[in-house]
Amino acid sequence: MNFRSDNESPISPAILGAIEKANIGMAYSYGEDLISQRLLARFSELFEHEVEVFPVATGTAANALAISQLTPVYGSVFCHEMAHLYSDECGAPEFFTGGAKIVPLSGELAKIDIETLENVMGGVGDLGVHETQASAVSISQSTELGTIYKVHEVQQLAKIAHSKGLGFHMDGARFANVIQSLGCTPAEMTWKAGVDILSFGATKNGALAAEAVIVFNQDRVQGLDRRHKRAGHLFSKMRYISAQLETYIKDGLWLELAAHANKAADALSKGFYKLSQYSPIEVLYPVEVNEIFVKLPESVAKGLKSRGYEFHHWPGTRDVYRLVTSFFTDLKDVQEILLATKELCDLKNIDEDKGNSCL
Amino acid sequence: MNFRSDNESPISPAILGAIEKANIGMAYSYGEDLISQRLLARFSELFEHEVEVFPVATGTAANALAISQLTPVYGSVFCHEMAHLYSDECGAPEFFTGGAKIVPLSGELAKIDIETLENVMGGVGDLGVHETQASAVSISQSTELGTIYKVHEVQQLAKIAHSKGLGFHMDGARFANVIQSLGCTPAEMTWKAGVDILSFGATKNGALAAEAVIVFNQDRVQGLDRRHKRAGHLFSKMRYISAQLETYIKDGLWLELAAHANKAADALSKGFYKLSQYSPIEVLYPVEVNEIFVKLPESVAKGLKSRGYEFHHWPGTRDVYRLVTSFFTDLKDVQEILLATKELCDLKNIDEDKGNSCL
Amino acid sequence: MNFRSDNESPISPAILGAIEKANIGMAYSYGEDLISQRLLARFSELFEHEVEVFPVATGTAANALAISQLTPVYGSVFCHEMAHLYSDECGAPEFFTGGAKIVPLSGELAKIDIETLENVMGGVGDLGVHETQASAVSISQSTELGTIYKVHEVQQLAKIAHSKGLGFHMDGARFANVIQSLGCTPAEMTWKAGVDILSFGATKNGALAAEAVIVFNQDRVQGLDRRHKRAGHLFSKMRYISAQLETYIKDGLWLELAAHANKAADALSKGFYKLSQYSPIEVLYPVEVNEIFVKLPESVAKGLKSRGYEFHHWPGTRDVYRLVTSFFTDLKDVQEILLATKELCDLKNIDEDKGNSCL
Amino acid sequence: MNFRSDNESPISPAILGAIEKANIGMAYSYGEDLISQRLLARFSELFEHEVEVFPVATGTAANALAISQLTPVYGSVFCHEMAHLYSDECGAPEFFTGGAKIVPLSGELAKIDIETLENVMGGVGDLGVHETQASAVSISQSTELGTIYKVHEVQQLAKIAHSKGLGFHMDGARFANVIQSLGCTPAEMTWKAGVDILSFGATKNGALAAEAVIVFNQDRVQGLDRRHKRAGHLFSKMRYISAQLETYIKDGLWLELAAHANKAADALSKGFYKLSQYSPIEVLYPVEVNEIFVKLPESVAKGLKSRGYEFHHWPGTRDVYRLVTSFFTDLKDVQEILLATKELCDLKNIDEDKGNSCL
Repeated sequence: MNFRSDNESPISPAILGAIEKANIGMAYSYGEDLISQRLLARFSELFEHEVEVFPVATGTAANALAISQLTPVYGSVFCHEMAHLYSDECGAPEFFTGGAKIVPLSGELAKIDIETLENVMGGVGDLGVHETQASAVSISQSTELGTIYKVHEVQQLAKIAHSKGLGFHMDGARFANVIQSLGCTPAEMTWKAGVDILSFGATKNGALAAEAVIVFNQDRVQGLDRRHKRAGHLFSKMRYISAQLETYIKDGLWLELAAHANKAADALSKGFYKLSQYSPIEVLYPVEVNEIFVKLPESVAKGLKSRGYEFHHWPGTRDVYRLVTSFFTDLKDVQEILLATKELCDLKNIDEDKGNSCL
Repeated sequence: MNFRSDNESPISPAILGAIEKANIGMAYSYGEDLISQRLLARFSELFEHEVEVFPVATGTAANALAISQLTPVYGSVFCHEMAHLYSDECGAPEFFTGGAKIVPLSGELAKIDIETLENVMGGVGDLGVHETQASAVSISQSTELGTIYKVHEVQQLAKIAHSKGLGFHMDGARFANVIQSLGCTPAEMTWKAGVDILSFGATKNGALAAEAVIVFNQDRVQGLDRRHKRAGHLFSKMRYISAQLETYIKDGLWLELAAHANKAADALSKGFYKLSQYSPIEVLYPVEVNEIFVKLPESVAKGLKSRGYEFHHWPGTRDVYRLVTSFFTDLKDVQEILLATKELCDLKNIDEDKGNSCL
Repeated sequence: MNFRSDNESPISPAILGAIEKANIGMAYSYGEDLISQRLLARFSELFEHEVEVFPVATGTAANALAISQLTPVYGSVFCHEMAHLYSDECGAPEFFTGGAKIVPLSGELAKIDIETLENVMGGVGDLGVHETQASAVSISQSTELGTIYKVHEVQQLAKIAHSKGLGFHMDGARFANVIQSLGCTPAEMTWKAGVDILSFGATKNGALAAEAVIVFNQDRVQGLDRRHKRAGHLFSKMRYISAQLETYIKDGLWLELAAHANKAADALSKGFYKLSQYSPIEVLYPVEVNEIFVKLPESVAKGLKSRGYEFHHWPGTRDVYRLVTSFFTDLKDVQEILLATKELCDLKNIDEDKGNSCL
Repeated sequence: MNFRSDNESPISPAILGAIEKANIGMAYSYGEDLISQRLLARFSELFEHEVEVFPVATGTAANALAISQLTPVYGSVFCHEMAHLYSDECGAPEFFTGGAKIVPLSGELAKIDIETLENVMGGVGDLGVHETQASAVSISQSTELGTIYKVHEVQQLAKIAHSKGLGFHMDGARFANVIQSLGCTPAEMTWKAGVDILSFGATKNGALAAEAVIVFNQDRVQGLDRRHKRAGHLFSKMRYISAQLETYIKDGLWLELAAHANKAADALSKGFYKLSQYSPIEVLYPVEVNEIFVKLPESVAKGLKSRGYEFHHWPGTRDVYRLVTSFFTDLKDVQEILLATKELCDLKNIDEDKGNSCL
C-alpha cells in the first residue's frame, strides 16, 4: 500500500528476464556488446529518426549530461522553478555544465508559461557579457505536479528557444506515462516538436536502473561520449543496462506498464474527486499521468498512515499530499485507500457530532 | 556630463599619487612588498578587528572569491534576485564556487525580505541530499537600486543565516557611500552585525582598480590564498594595488570621496523630486547613496541625451533611467541637467499648446 | 576464450540470485530500503571498523568521488603515472574534484616508489601559493600491471602521506584478488595500514554493476552524501545495488570468486613462463593477481587471435599483450591457449626450418 | 641589487605616464573607452594580422583564459613539465578549463622535445573515450630556464599539434625579450609559425599590471569575452590597462625595455662564465633572454646575500640559483655583483689557506 513514488516499485518481470537472458558468458564491455550495439537501431526505430543513445542509470545523470551538451560553462539554462533539475538534483546540472546558471521561471501547473519565456527571451543580451549566454530551455514532461505539456505547447516553447539559438531539452523521467496518456507518437512529442535532447526514463516504470540520453540533433552530440565516461556513467557491463532498455521499448512494453500506472492514478483521482464533493478533501491539479496531489485534513492523513498507507507530504505545504501509482500498483489498493479515506471522513465528523456532512 | 556609472570616473589624484609614490625601484612581488604587508594592519585598524585582506582588481573577483569561501561545491547561496552576483557577473559565482547554486530571493527595493529569508530557511533540509546544502546569504550594500540595509536589518539577516549554519557575505562595491550615508562605523556595519566576509570596493570611488576581500571570520579564510592565486588575481606587482587601497582608507579619504558622490546624488534627486511634482517625472526609490532611478517621458530622455547628458536606460523597463554620481561629479553638471530637464518639460508642453503644466 | 578483461565476465549466479530475491514488491528508494540500511553493518563487520559506505555503479565513479573527498579544488593528488585514475577515466578525477591537479609519479611495476614519494613530499610547499596544495596520495591495489603493494608498503606510503597532512586513497577495483592473493585481512590492508578511503570493486569479480566507496576516516566523510547525489550516482532503486554488494561479501563469496580468477592466472602465467624458456615469449611482471603481461612474437599473437583467443594488445608497446582471467574463466581455456601457443611456436620454427627450438 | 625577478621591477616612466595621461575625466567602462577601442588596431598592426585582444592583469589569467579556449572540459593540454602553467599557477589552467588534464612532457632546456611530442601524438586516441581528448599544446616562450624556441622549432611543434587537430598556445610572459633576442618579427614568431593564441606579457617588462590574450585564430575566439568577464578579469576602468599596453607596444618601447634587460643578462652571464673557468661556479643553460641559472658554492651564495644581493635559490636543487635582470637593472649592479663574486671566491680560498685557486 505504498503510494510514495513509482521509483519504489520493483523490476518488471520482463525486464528482469532480459537481464537474466543477457547473462550468458563473456561479452564486450563499455557498450561494445551486441545488445548495446543494436540499441541505437531500436531507439531510432521507436523515434522514427536517427538518434544517438547514451544509457545511464539515474535520471539525474541523464538530465545533467543532456544539459551539459546544450550550454557552455558561461551559459544559462531556463526551466520551471519546480523542475527536478532545479530543485531536486543537488546541483547536478551546475556540476555537469561546469557552473552554468540554471534560471527558474514561473508558470501555472509547473509548466513554463509561454508568455513568460517570450518575455525572458526578449531581454536576452541586454547586459552583454555581464550576463550569461542564454543557451537552453528544459521542460519536465510530465511535470513535477503530474501535468503534461501538449504537443503544440512543446512546439511553441521549442520554437521560442530555437529562434534565439537556444537548445531544447525534455526531462522525460515519466515519458512513457505521457505518451500513453496523450496517445501521440514518441516522434511527435520530441524531435518533431523541436526537442534536441531527451532524458528517456525507464527506472520509474519497471527497470532496475536504466535511463537513456537520446540525442535527436546531431549538432549536439559531439563530446557526449567523453562526458558520459568522465562522469562515471559508462558502465563496463553495459549489456545489462542495454538489455533493460531494449526490452522496455520492445513490443510496447513501456506503454503497457505506463497504461497500468495511469489507469490506477485515474481511478484514484476519480475516487478522491468524488470524495472531495462531500468533504474538505481537494484534488489540486489535473491528473494527467500517475501523480495525484490532494489536500487532506490532518486527521485523514494521519488515519491513512496509521492504517499502513504510505505517501509523501508535499514539502512547503501544510496539508498537501502526493500519491504516485506505478506499473506495480494493485488496483485493489486503490479501492481500499479510497474506502479508508471515506471511513476516516465519516469518523471525523461523528467525533465532531455534526452528522455525516463529509460524505 | 556623464551620469552613466561611477565606474566611468577617473582615478582620484591622491590615489594616483600613491601609485606614483610606490614606483620607486624594485619591490618584492606577490604581496610581499612593504605596502602590502602593512595593509593588514591598516584594515584591521579601520574595522577595529583582526582581518585578513586579499586585494583584487574587480568587484566580480571580490564577490566570487568571497562566495567561494562560504559554500562547498554542492551548496547554495541566497541573494536578492537583482543582486549583481546573480545577474551581472556572467556566472562568476557559479564558476568560482565550482557550481554552487545561486538562489534568487525577492524583496522590495532590491533588499532581501526578512520574512522571505525566514521562510526559505524554514524549508532548508526538507529534501535531504536531493537539495543543495544551504551555505550562505549574500547582500548588496548598497543595493542595485541604490538603497541601503540599515545596521539592524543586516543584523537580523545575518542572525537568521547563522542560526542555520550559513555564512554571511556583503557585496560592498559602494561600501563607502553606505558608511558615509549612515554615519555608522565600518565595524558596526560588518562583523559586529554578523558579516563574515566583505567585498570592499574602491574602484567606483576613486581607485584605478582596487577592491579587497575582507575576511572577519577566521574560520572562513583557509585556502583563500590559493583561490586568489588560482583565479589569476594575485598580482605580481601587488604594491600598486595595495598602495591604492592604503591611500583610499587613509585619513578618511574614502568617506570624503563618497560624501561628494552622495551629496551630488542628493542634489540631483531633490531636483528631480521637485520636478516630479509638476510633471510625469517620477523618482522611483529612496535615494540613499549615489544612484537615482527616475521615470522620464521619452521626449525628456531623448532631449537630455541630445544635449550630451549620458545615463543608462534600465533594462527590462520602458521609461526608467538610472543616473549615478561619483566623487568626480561636477555639481554644476547636476544643476545643469536639472535645468535642462525643466526646459525639456516646458518645451514639450509648449509644443502641445497646453500651457506650462509641467513646472 | 576471452582473456580481454574481467569486466567482460557475466554476473555470478549468486549475485544475480540476490537481485532476484530483492525484487519483491515496493521498497524505499535512495538507499532507505532494508538491504541498503544493513549494508553499513555488513561492511563494518567485514573491515572490523566503523565505516561509511556509498554504493556506486562504476569504478570511475568510486575513484572520482573518493578523491574529491580528499582534496580541495586547489589541491593536488599524487598517483602512479599508470594509475587508472590518471590515464583511463577521461579526466573524471579532475571533474569531480573541481579541477584539482592529478600528478603522475614514476615507479617500477606500476607501484609508487617510496623514495620518489618521499622526495616529492620533501619539496611540498616550496612554491607557496603558486603551487597547488598537496592533498592526497592514491594507489591502485592491485596495480595496472597486476602487481600488489604489500601491507608494509601501503603502511610506508600512507605514513609519508599522513606526515604531510595528505589523505590516502586505495583504488581497489580488484581488491578481492589482492586480499585472496596475500591472505591478509581487509582491515590489515586498509585502515590499519593508513587507508582513509577505499574504492571497493565488485563488478569485475561477479557483480552486475556494483562498487562501493568505503570511508574509514570519519573526518573525510562530510558532504560525500551530496557529492554522491550530485554526480548522479545515488540510485533510486538502490536495493538492487546493495543486494549485489551484500551477497558479494557474504560468506566469503568475493574471495572464492577471486580465488578462481587468481588460480586461472597462476596456471596461465606458469604455462607462459615455461614456454618462455624455449621461445621469445616473455612474462613481463610478477603475476600476483589475475593479470598477465606477455611479450609474444607477432606470429603467435596473430595465430592465437585467428583461433578465437581474445586479449588486448597493450597500448604504447609493439609486442606486449595483456591477458586477464576472472571468476568465470574456464580452466580448460587456460590449458588450450597454452597448447595453442606451444603449437604456434612450433609451427613458426618449422617454417623457419630451424627445428624445434621453441619448446 | 635585486636579481630576484623582473616582476619586482617598477613601472616604466613612459607607461606610468600613459596612465596619468588617461586620467582625464570620465570614460566608458569595460573596454568601451577610446583607448581600449583602438587597441585592437594597434595590436593587429604590430602582428600584421587581424587579432582579437583581451587585456588582463596577470599572466596566470592570460594563460588560463587562453588554454580554456583551446580545450573542452574533457580535454588534455600538453606542456613541458617545467611550464609555468603546469607548476606555478596553483591549478589555474585546471580551474579555468573546468578540469581539463594538463599533461607534462619532458625535454632538454625546458623545451618540449619534438620527438616526444610526436610520440605522444602517435598514441592519441588509443584508449578511446577512456582517455581525455588531446586538445592543445602550450609552450613557454621564453622557457622557465630562460631558453628560447627558435621560429622553426615553434613551426614544427605547431605543425604536429595541428596535424592532430590540437590548438597551439604560447605563454609569452617574456615575449618581448624573445623577440628582441632573436630579431624576428612578432608575426614570424606567432601566427606565421602556427600559434593560435598568445599570452602577451608586459608586466615583467615595465607595466603596472598588463597582459593580453591575443587570439590569431578567429575559430578560437568565441565565448572568450564571457570567460573574460566571468573570471573577474574584465576591468571596469579598462582604459588604464589598455593605456599601458598601447604605450608598451608604441614606437618599439617594449623592445627597448627588453633590450636593456637582455643586455644586462648578457653581461652578467658572460661575467659568470668567465668566473666559471677559474672556480666551481657553473653557468647552467644558454642565456638567451634575461634569466641566468648558476651553480654557486654555498659560501659564495651566502656571501653575496650578506652583501645585499638578492636572487632566488632554485627549488629542488642544492646549489642552483636564478638571477633575473629587467629593464630597470642597473648595469653597475651587474658589474658589482660580478666583482663581489670574484672577491668571495678569493676570500673563501684564503680562508682555506690554499692560495688563489679560485680565480
